Amino acid sequence: MTPQSEDFSAWYNEVVIKALLVDRGPVRGTMVIRPYGYRIWELIQADLDGRIKDAGHENACFPMFIPESYLKREAEHVEGFAPELAVVTHAGGKELEEPLIVRPTSETVIGEYMAKWIDSHRDLPLLLNQWANVVRWEMRPRMFLRTTEFLWQEGHTAHIDEADAMRETMWALDAYASLARELAAMPVIAGEKTPGERFAGAVRTYTIEGMMRDGRALQAGTSHYLGTNFAKAFEIQYQDAEGDLVLAHTTSWGMSTRMIGGVIMTHGDDKGLVLPPRLAPYQVVIVPIGRKDQGEETAAKAREVAATLKAAGIRVHVDDKRPQLSPGFKYNEWEMRGVPIRLELGPRDLEGGVVTLARRLATEVGQGKEQIPFDELPALLPKILDEFQAFLLNRAEAFQHEHTADIDTWDAFVTQVAQGWAQSFHCGRAECEDAIKAETAATPRCIPLNAPQETGTCVKCDLPSVYGKRVIFGKAY
Amino acid sequence: MTPQSEDFSAWYNEVVIKALLVDRGPVRGTMVIRPYGYRIWELIQADLDGRIKDAGHENACFPMFIPESYLKREAEHVEGFAPELAVVTHAGGKELEEPLIVRPTSETVIGEYMAKWIDSHRDLPLLLNQWANVVRWEMRPRMFLRTTEFLWQEGHTAHIDEADAMRETMWALDAYASLARELAAMPVIAGEKTPGERFAGAVRTYTIEGMMRDGRALQAGTSHYLGTNFAKAFEIQYQDAEGDLVLAHTTSWGMSTRMIGGVIMTHGDDKGLVLPPRLAPYQVVIVPIGRKDQGEETAAKAREVAATLKAAGIRVHVDDKRPQLSPGFKYNEWEMRGVPIRLELGPRDLEGGVVTLARRLATEVGQGKEQIPFDELPALLPKILDEFQAFLLNRAEAFQHEHTADIDTWDAFVTQVAQGWAQSFHCGRAECEDAIKAETAATPRCIPLNAPQETGTCVKCDLPSVYGKRVIFGKAY
Repeated sequence: MTPQSEDFSAWYNEVVIKALLVDRGPVRGTMVIRPYGYRIWELIQADLDGRIKDAGHENACFPMFIPESYLKREAEHVEGFAPELAVVTHAGGKELEEPLIVRPTSETVIGEYMAKWIDSHRDLPLLLNQWANVVRWEMRPRMFLRTTEFLWQEGHTAHIDEADAMRETMWALDAYASLARELAAMPVIAGEKTPGERFAGAVRTYTIEGMMRDGRALQAGTSHYLGTNFAKAFEIQYQDAEGDLVLAHTTSWGMSTRMIGGVIMTHGDDKGLVLPPRLAPYQVVIVPIGRKDQGEETAAKAREVAATLKAAGIRVHVDDKRPQLSPGFKYNEWEMRGVPIRLELGPRDLEGGVVTLARRLATEVGQGKEQIPFDELPALLPKILDEFQAFLLNRAEAFQHEHTADIDTWDAFVTQVAQGWAQSFHCGRAECEDAIKAETAATPRCIPLNAPQETGTCVKCDLPSVYGKRVIFGKAY
Repeated sequence: MTPQSEDFSAWYNEVVIKALLVDRGPVRGTMVIRPYGYRIWELIQADLDGRIKDAGHENACFPMFIPESYLKREAEHVEGFAPELAVVTHAGGKELEEPLIVRPTSETVIGEYMAKWIDSHRDLPLLLNQWANVVRWEMRPRMFLRTTEFLWQEGHTAHIDEADAMRETMWALDAYASLARELAAMPVIAGEKTPGERFAGAVRTYTIEGMMRDGRALQAGTSHYLGTNFAKAFEIQYQDAEGDLVLAHTTSWGMSTRMIGGVIMTHGDDKGLVLPPRLAPYQVVIVPIGRKDQGEETAAKAREVAATLKAAGIRVHVDDKRPQLSPGFKYNEWEMRGVPIRLELGPRDLEGGVVTLARRLATEVGQGKEQIPFDELPALLPKILDEFQAFLLNRAEAFQHEHTADIDTWDAFVTQVAQGWAQSFHCGRAECEDAIKAETAATPRCIPLNAPQETGTCVKCDLPSVYGKRVIFGKAY
């Protein structure tokens, strides 16, 4: 495998295929998510769906074909998405009277139904979510990060006023940040996007940004306060307590299969994937060792151990169906596929009533192989997995801190964004953002919510700063 | 609402909208599945996904855009689906070189990857499933039953030989039949389709057929043994133990949102929906009663009761946010929306430490309103819900038996299929099937697996029967 330090992109493209997460789709820019990759998505889904429902949202399903006329109703929105649209022109053997857009996102079609379903202030807030596939034609596709079709959830809510809609917008952002941290062991910076990076049609866009191991930023979830833009376009209005018709304030927010790319690039190393236990399809893999009869015995014991671990709530896999492969090959393969804990079980282990436990990142964790008695495993493994999860989060946090700095001069800025993030003052002018991007490929990732109030002069042009805070700049995926 | 006896179709179209299950989509033939309808789908999904995984299948996600050339590789398959396809011709602002088909089903694209992923007999069986949306352009759309876009799962598996593939085919059929019976309280007949009703590209198609309350049949899940048809078309082959290249045998099987239509038409009545508890979004609704201060007190108690029921694993909803509506209005609405159990909680109930329990189908169940002490509810309600679930299954079974008969003369056949199912001998000739359909609108639904071996003469043309069993004929959705 290409080392990360040599060519991070090449490393990524190789690891997603070799680890059996994904395969290239038949059409350029599409992907096949294989079971090992899809299981990670299911684990993200289960957690996020719980958060969404616990906060009072309900899932629904809107059609994926959107009449072209709907998209045109919100001018900024259609302008932003027009270059990326896929269009159905024929169906049922005929040319359609109106072309249908395959949804790139669903604000427009959901707006149409919000308008229909909302009459009174009593119908608000309307809290909807859907798990769906969406299509955005990508010029520079990349597995998980930018594919023409991807999976996501999209929350769409309508509220009585700005304050309530903003509470919702920030709730979603916080849910994404918590999920990233708790499940993906990915520390993220939550902040607001500058106007140039806003969602097409939004009043304010918020984001969580994670730092990948090449120092680049990955936008891993966004939450938008849409003001009354879509409410005006689709007549989403309600009768207030006085009987007056008032426009609703809407929000939308999404997290996608892109998150899987974030996990890979936050934790992976030159040996391959490193999966945080809470998102690992297999948290533990048991490799029984031994030829012929001995192989049968260790395999039987491995399955027995696996059953006790499964009962303890651990996702475990026994590698007992590939006698043609050597134990060493299997060890390497499971390391490459990012399994947190490997248990080796040979004839000598069996005799001693133990397994040999090996951790992914053994050197970094500072813990070599250990012999563990069978009966201690169900109690011990959850602890070891928790420790490993915490280790990954700490390591990623340390990495992010090391690669982030307050930067106030242009030369230092150029150096900093070549390997990480610069926290700098900015004048807020679009042409200045463009100049920075042209010279360094860095863009403003966000204005962090929790940054201190500070003012200064623009790192690029020396005009006074406008955001009242430093802005995080970095190269992005 | 239109009574079922007057116009069953009109009843259905009204109930799906009024019960807030679904709304008409913006494009003809599409639907918006509203939260109340989508929750039913989620409950079906959770159960079926568990069965699928427990049997060793893994979920994956294949692209929804299929190159036109893939579909053309299996001749029968493309012929069967050609009239229903939706086609993307433009994307990213350009006309595509090859038009893309929006998947009507995924045998072709999955076949392509099976071929890639299978090398050796050790790679078999390959057991895949995906939860997806598919598109089939419908001329006579009907909410849930036939919509241009619908949701389903599609299992796709590859096996070493016919015997193993047939075991899989029958496993899926049995899973569908069990789910229909256990979750949907829908007794179904499992059987094989006659050649004319086979899936395009299959060697054998199996189906579960439920009887709706108008006597028509609903195909509610199908399982196909595809032989080596797709293996040939996509070169799905493996090296056997002797090193020879051998074609795999494949299967596919699917259950869709159509199942929701089946639930509605199996149990609903002139008051509206009747939901089996295991698929009811709300198994119990509590309606607190009382004006002003008293209303506050009963609502608070209702929420407290709801919390104890939720803790007991019951899906419960408190109708406490609509003070502008009368209790009577709410009772009718929850009956119309099919909630199995309603708890009324007025000031007098509160004083007596009881709720008033009312069942959906009170007359049919033979059980009027009852006063139940608060503390007995968590233990009692699961029992009442189980009884209600069993009552629905029994009632549906009785209905199916009453409306099914062995029929050996043409006159009796015509009468029988006007109101139910005829079990008749058939000659197996396509032109005879066509004649039956032309005269009565009835089609062969299936050759039941568990029917006794019998022979006779064709109910239509008197030629000898060919299936070794009676065939079920009925009008179908």
